[in-house]
Amino acid sequence: MMKTLLLLAAALPSIAFAQGLDPVALRDAALNDTLAYEIIEGLTTEVGPRLGGTSAEAQARDWGMAKLKALGFSNVHIEPFLVKGWVRGIETGEIEGTNPRKLAITALGNSGATPAEGLSADIVLFDGLAALKAAPEGSLKGKIAFVTHRMARAQDGSSYGAFGPIRFVGPSIAAKKGAAAIVIRSAGTDYHRNPHTGVTNFEKGVTPIPAAAVSVPDAELIERLAKRGPVRLKLTLTPRANGPSPSGSVVGEIPGSDPSAGIVLIGGHLDSWDLGQGAIDDGAGVAITTAAAKRILDSGKQPRRTIRVVWFGSEEIGGGIDGDAYQKAHTKERHAFAAESDFGADRIWQFNVKLPEAAKDVTARLATALAPLGIAPGKGEVEGGADVEETIKAGASGIDLRQDGTRYFDLHHTPDDTLDKIDPVQLRQNVAAWTAMLAIIANAPENLGQTISKK
Amino acid sequence: MMKTLLLLAAALPSIAFAQGLDPVALRDAALNDTLAYEIIEGLTTEVGPRLGGTSAEAQARDWGMAKLKALGFSNVHIEPFLVKGWVRGIETGEIEGTNPRKLAITALGNSGATPAEGLSADIVLFDGLAALKAAPEGSLKGKIAFVTHRMARAQDGSSYGAFGPIRFVGPSIAAKKGAAAIVIRSAGTDYHRNPHTGVTNFEKGVTPIPAAAVSVPDAELIERLAKRGPVRLKLTLTPRANGPSPSGSVVGEIPGSDPSAGIVLIGGHLDSWDLGQGAIDDGAGVAITTAAAKRILDSGKQPRRTIRVVWFGSEEIGGGIDGDAYQKAHTKERHAFAAESDFGADRIWQFNVKLPEAAKDVTARLATALAPLGIAPGKGEVEGGADVEETIKAGASGIDLRQDGTRYFDLHHTPDDTLDKIDPVQLRQNVAAWTAMLAIIANAPENLGQTISKK
Repeated sequence: MMKTLLLLAAALPSIAFAQGLDPVALRDAALNDTLAYEIIEGLTTEVGPRLGGTSAEAQARDWGMAKLKALGFSNVHIEPFLVKGWVRGIETGEIEGTNPRKLAITALGNSGATPAEGLSADIVLFDGLAALKAAPEGSLKGKIAFVTHRMARAQDGSSYGAFGPIRFVGPSIAAKKGAAAIVIRSAGTDYHRNPHTGVTNFEKGVTPIPAAAVSVPDAELIERLAKRGPVRLKLTLTPRANGPSPSGSVVGEIPGSDPSAGIVLIGGHLDSWDLGQGAIDDGAGVAITTAAAKRILDSGKQPRRTIRVVWFGSEEIGGGIDGDAYQKAHTKERHAFAAESDFGADRIWQFNVKLPEAAKDVTARLATALAPLGIAPGKGEVEGGADVEETIKAGASGIDLRQDGTRYFDLHHTPDDTLDKIDPVQLRQNVAAWTAMLAIIANAPENLGQTISKK
Repeated sequence: MMKTLLLLAAALPSIAFAQGLDPVALRDAALNDTLAYEIIEGLTTEVGPRLGGTSAEAQARDWGMAKLKALGFSNVHIEPFLVKGWVRGIETGEIEGTNPRKLAITALGNSGATPAEGLSADIVLFDGLAALKAAPEGSLKGKIAFVTHRMARAQDGSSYGAFGPIRFVGPSIAAKKGAAAIVIRSAGTDYHRNPHTGVTNFEKGVTPIPAAAVSVPDAELIERLAKRGPVRLKLTLTPRANGPSPSGSVVGEIPGSDPSAGIVLIGGHLDSWDLGQGAIDDGAGVAITTAAAKRILDSGKQPRRTIRVVWFGSEEIGGGIDGDAYQKAHTKERHAFAAESDFGADRIWQFNVKLPEAAKDVTARLATALAPLGIAPGKGEVEGGADVEETIKAGASGIDLRQDGTRYFDLHHTPDDTLDKIDPVQLRQNVAAWTAMLAIIANAPENLGQTISKK
């Protein structure tokens, strides 16, 4: 008798699913989640760093395919695209002198190379990007531009917006002014001898110069020496641009009961910088979103909307090309909602939403479900994350589940981005928040997003 | 008239000095000290790392001579000795595999070298020194011994006593069992990708094998991989033993009024490991003790006992040979008292003394003067520090002004030992404690120490 009932239930999922998803029960169960940590532990241990466009990223895709299949997701597949490949070479630097000082230095992504035997030049010190911009054209000829700053910790990570441009565009500006190379104080907030890498972008037509970041203690040593007299650096950086290189995103789904309701797109990015293990950036993001989706999958209740989990393949070196590739490939599909986790694994403290006016009650339901986790509604615009912003721009609704970024830029893009930096308790709070959010959004009776026009 | 009085005072210092040193006033003024920070800033900026027996250490000696002279110390000179030189070469390591992992690795002092092209071997994992000791003779032939542990933070630094021996003697034990090399989890308590170096000692007759430490995150990755299957490492370490190399300690004095009362010996060590800047280990120690002595010098009151400040030259690679050399050279002098600062620059929380029974009141006076700084009397034995322990063993009284070591082994012997790790507020508390202690000890009417026998 029991057996018959069980078989019936299995044969008639729609009956059970019709009972709906309970955001509160799912949320509370997620506070005991172990899957998210297991995914980060596996990815950092069995694959490790996985720069987009390299064989390590290809290994990570295989790992992700196997994982999503093993977890029971549907339609698991890879969506390939090409990324402009770039790989690190030798990277050493020193302050020349009678007692030369070895620098903790790393090339920025897309950096040019020095001659194999290195490059020696005096520095010209700039305090910030505005000072570099103000340098007369040609004034840096044969010199190394050294740009420092005072980026400080901020819960919302906003200091990266203020000081990050030194890395994003400083090298291109220095190159145009004739600099032989540029060295920046890392766009980071820690005081460890671990420099922060990350992409820099040379303007079209500007030949890349060697561009590197030193750790904050090294930067402050250079600043102190510069107060005493001229400072001469020797740099040896031999990175290599590889041209178009295969990359790809891993996709898995939980099919929804109502195809017309549109897709809920969630994910993080699978690729990472090459210096650490890619634990907080962004093993955490793929793990949190996958673990949350898995809880919906295991609830025994089919969601109204299809939940699509994407492990994006080249956010870092690709500068978001993976999200662009996704959006381009899926332009004909209706996306109701999109959200990314790409800011570590510390606790979520605030959420911002983009929802249609008619779906205002969804915000209230989210606020109610998230409040017990210490998460308050914010008043900001939804940014979405580099991999989903194109989908949101194209009309999808979205949410930012904002994580505490106080220590994020201590670790971001450094050798220190390792498994031990994951706090399992805060990680579980993230999974609980994403689970509650998914339960509400996937089943919302309201109309979410816009119908994407068929271009 | 005023002028005449001033001239008289200058001509008759003994009158002023007879008024004695006021430990309380001197202590409180020292809470505004700037000299100690200035010394550390200068040494770390103008010299930098200064491994004993190298030209960098020679530069540091010159810097120290000039500094002690400029500060007005008497009898400033260098006391030379020889140290067994050892210098670092190339040091790289990786975990072999389809996605090789670069290790944050550093050779231990006195490590042997691998072939120039490196050495590849499987590891045998040991959890602690006892496990390594229990390995059968010959069982490590052609293998890399990998020794891990769980050293944790402790205010009194005692975890170094418990786990440090893995570094001190582990390599010699592994070599005797036939290991091709040894890699240890750093004897440290931080989770940064900065390995901790430090000397290891091969027993007489044992040929040094390559011996290195990996950072804690690297060690934990190796542990996780070892649970999944065999782990193979490739190491390239090319350090070099240099044989007897010139080193020396820098000495300066404040002459006392009563030569029969014996010398008060204080100091820290000038040499440092080569990976960082030698700020907490031990720029802080020479700075704290020198700044305290300078306050006695500037008080205008001559101390009863001669205060001798020594910047010891090779505590690290020499393993305390600098203190032995000092004691040997000064065996005929009566030392009343000796103390060293060599545990960073965080606040002093406790003191232990070794004093003659008849000088018990000195302890009470110290307790009264130190209590307002948050320093309580302890019940332990005086250890003295590696550079003064021989002098204390030979009969001198002494004190341990015990610093908070909670974060000391996060930084000790790593690239992270840089100026920014000095907390100026805690540094000033140290200077205040040392100043009060010196004012009491240098002028104590009691008989301190023993007369050292003339061997």
